[in-house]
Amino acid sequence: MSSHVFNQSSKSTASPASPSAIVDQIVAGWQAVQDSTPLVQCLTNTVVQPLTANVLIAGGAAPAMVDVVGEAEVFAAIASGVLINLGTVAPGQQAAMPVAAQAAHENGTPWVLDPVAIGALPVRTNLAHTLTAFQPTVVRGNASEIIALSGGVGGRGVDSTASVEEAADAARAVAEKTCGVVAVSGEVDLITDGSTEIRCVNGSPMLTQITGAGCSLGAYITAFVATIEDPVIATAAAHVCFGIAGERAAQKASGPGTFGVYLLDEIANLNADIIRAEAKLP
Amino acid sequence: MSSHVFNQSSKSTASPASPSAIVDQIVAGWQAVQDSTPLVQCLTNTVVQPLTANVLIAGGAAPAMVDVVGEAEVFAAIASGVLINLGTVAPGQQAAMPVAAQAAHENGTPWVLDPVAIGALPVRTNLAHTLTAFQPTVVRGNASEIIALSGGVGGRGVDSTASVEEAADAARAVAEKTCGVVAVSGEVDLITDGSTEIRCVNGSPMLTQITGAGCSLGAYITAFVATIEDPVIATAAAHVCFGIAGERAAQKASGPGTFGVYLLDEIANLNADIIRAEAKLP
Amino acid sequence: MSSHVFNQSSKSTASPASPSAIVDQIVAGWQAVQDSTPLVQCLTNTVVQPLTANVLIAGGAAPAMVDVVGEAEVFAAIASGVLINLGTVAPGQQAAMPVAAQAAHENGTPWVLDPVAIGALPVRTNLAHTLTAFQPTVVRGNASEIIALSGGVGGRGVDSTASVEEAADAARAVAEKTCGVVAVSGEVDLITDGSTEIRCVNGSPMLTQITGAGCSLGAYITAFVATIEDPVIATAAAHVCFGIAGERAAQKASGPGTFGVYLLDEIANLNADIIRAEAKLP
Repeated sequence: MSSHVFNQSSKSTASPASPSAIVDQIVAGWQAVQDSTPLVQCLTNTVVQPLTANVLIAGGAAPAMVDVVGEAEVFAAIASGVLINLGTVAPGQQAAMPVAAQAAHENGTPWVLDPVAIGALPVRTNLAHTLTAFQPTVVRGNASEIIALSGGVGGRGVDSTASVEEAADAARAVAEKTCGVVAVSGEVDLITDGSTEIRCVNGSPMLTQITGAGCSLGAYITAFVATIEDPVIATAAAHVCFGIAGERAAQKASGPGTFGVYLLDEIANLNADIIRAEAKLP
Repeated sequence: MSSHVFNQSSKSTASPASPSAIVDQIVAGWQAVQDSTPLVQCLTNTVVQPLTANVLIAGGAAPAMVDVVGEAEVFAAIASGVLINLGTVAPGQQAAMPVAAQAAHENGTPWVLDPVAIGALPVRTNLAHTLTAFQPTVVRGNASEIIALSGGVGGRGVDSTASVEEAADAARAVAEKTCGVVAVSGEVDLITDGSTEIRCVNGSPMLTQITGAGCSLGAYITAFVATIEDPVIATAAAHVCFGIAGERAAQKASGPGTFGVYLLDEIANLNADIIRAEAKLP
Repeated sequence: MSSHVFNQSSKSTASPASPSAIVDQIVAGWQAVQDSTPLVQCLTNTVVQPLTANVLIAGGAAPAMVDVVGEAEVFAAIASGVLINLGTVAPGQQAAMPVAAQAAHENGTPWVLDPVAIGALPVRTNLAHTLTAFQPTVVRGNASEIIALSGGVGGRGVDSTASVEEAADAARAVAEKTCGVVAVSGEVDLITDGSTEIRCVNGSPMLTQITGAGCSLGAYITAFVATIEDPVIATAAAHVCFGIAGERAAQKASGPGTFGVYLLDEIANLNADIIRAEAKLP
């Protein structure tokens, strides 16, 4: 099977699309984000908040880190999209995350769950299962995290000890459970809703040499699913655009410090021509 | 009326000052900050803490993020100035902010309130009204935030939906209530104590392309009001110096990543000649 | 006495080592960190979390900011090393720090205490004394902080008001109490376990012009003590390598913004030849 978006089972209604048709959708999706400035609420870990907010602004979105009870649920009802990232789970955030997820779910606000380092760590693992019940539009994680979320054995902290393909069945199982999209990040990213699947290869090993690249990608995905109707295409578009920016930043960088700086420049300086020329679908 | 500092009402005792006289005061104020290394306590949001601390150091001040009950009120009594920024209001900070404001007020420590995104968000809106009773030396916000603080209808998250001039009456009303200064940030910044007013135009649109520029300006203002007797001049001096650094950083930057880095370099590399040459008062 | 590692008292079993022998151990230690990717758990302040995580990755370690009760103690038992930094002590961290320290102590996980700004601030001062009972492998601080930890009078916020040599007796007293190493950071760093002592002079004044350099050094030390058996050599190796990177970054930087970026590049680009050529032991 050579198509890049294909059906896994008979239940899918997605038409197989050619790579160039997908690239067209990605470019259109990126443009839609630029045109609409989606308001992205983030309940995310304190380590990556500055980079995450800067990635969102560079990407054409408006970040709002509203993460306390009494505000999180109010804002989730009006935001364009909500990110819930479990990287650090201070007591205040632990309480706010379920109410924000519930409000997003009940108000039809697209939302993204990033189950950072679940598996070995009990508080966030329980939280991830509670949150999953509110049907995240997208779950984004590394292979170990997706395996853990599906009920398997997770990895060592934030590093994945499993490969993306080892997590493919787990990804499909989680997608079925949430009726949403699951994105497994790795050298080749897998994006699946249980039937339609896209693999993305844009990116750079330098993205693993700074803190928060994956977490920021989760926020960037939120901007896209807040804007574009098809969450598989939205998630793929975010991966491709982020990956292209990462490749371009790596070419300029002399180390992880300059890489992190150029990554923001390159996200902000993306345009339709660059995306069209540099998008790679395997 | 062509003077740049002028009286709004008969109660003012400020003399009209010429632009060049104001620039002299700004240069002298900047020098005083460099000479005294004011100790600036920050209770500020977790998104902007790194940039805020770095802006303060680059600006000649010493930051101290002391924001828990049991310490915040102790430190507010001895710090040179205190910043309270409502950008994220985790439970621990919610509790510490009023005790810090009260201690600053009772001990005569100048303090600055940045009522980030109040209006739509109930927890911080209530907190802002509680804090205002402790008479902040300066309130700094965008137009929507100042309108919300005066009792009007606020904006969408951190972005202002109103213009600075639309907020002018609200700014004067808040200044009257707090017996302090109100600064409304925008393309043209308005600084008022209800009678004396200065408008500042230094700055760059790039300052809106990174997270935390406005929040860091709030901290930078705190360093100036902690050092200079006249809070209107202190607030204007901070706006002008920060704006000049932003203009110079924008000239070098190739995007928001490099802009954020150069902003710190330019704040640190300011000197009296640069300020005198580049200060713009409309 | 011209040796660089020497005995202070008869109880020491350390052999005096020549500077070149120490440099050999530092190079070997640095290589061991690169080869083992130690997993460093951080309970650290929110201001410096991004820089700290990036320094750890650049330095060859894997950061994990696991700092809530229910997870912190679980992770401290399996991490390669634990950093506890008192720079901001939100209620959730206040509760998690003692349980993490206890778990590290009971499971033989090397751990580092950075008693930021203790002395004047009561919450963290009490916390520091509680934590000290769990025998940190290394205590790292400035002179004022080490004096305060030994029971003396501390400084003003995060800035030291005492010199390293004024803190030497306090450092030895704390080392004796914790049966561990104490590192006093300053122009000349003092590293002592109460008997063996090393002084390090690599570094740059620019390290004081950004927020979090000292705090990140605490994390970097944790990566080394997690990897290398001798904690005096491990602590010295971290100081020397970090100081060399700081010197190299300062040569390239045009201000504190670019300095912070190049610091990460230079930490990542260290190699055995650079360390051997540029290590300075007084």
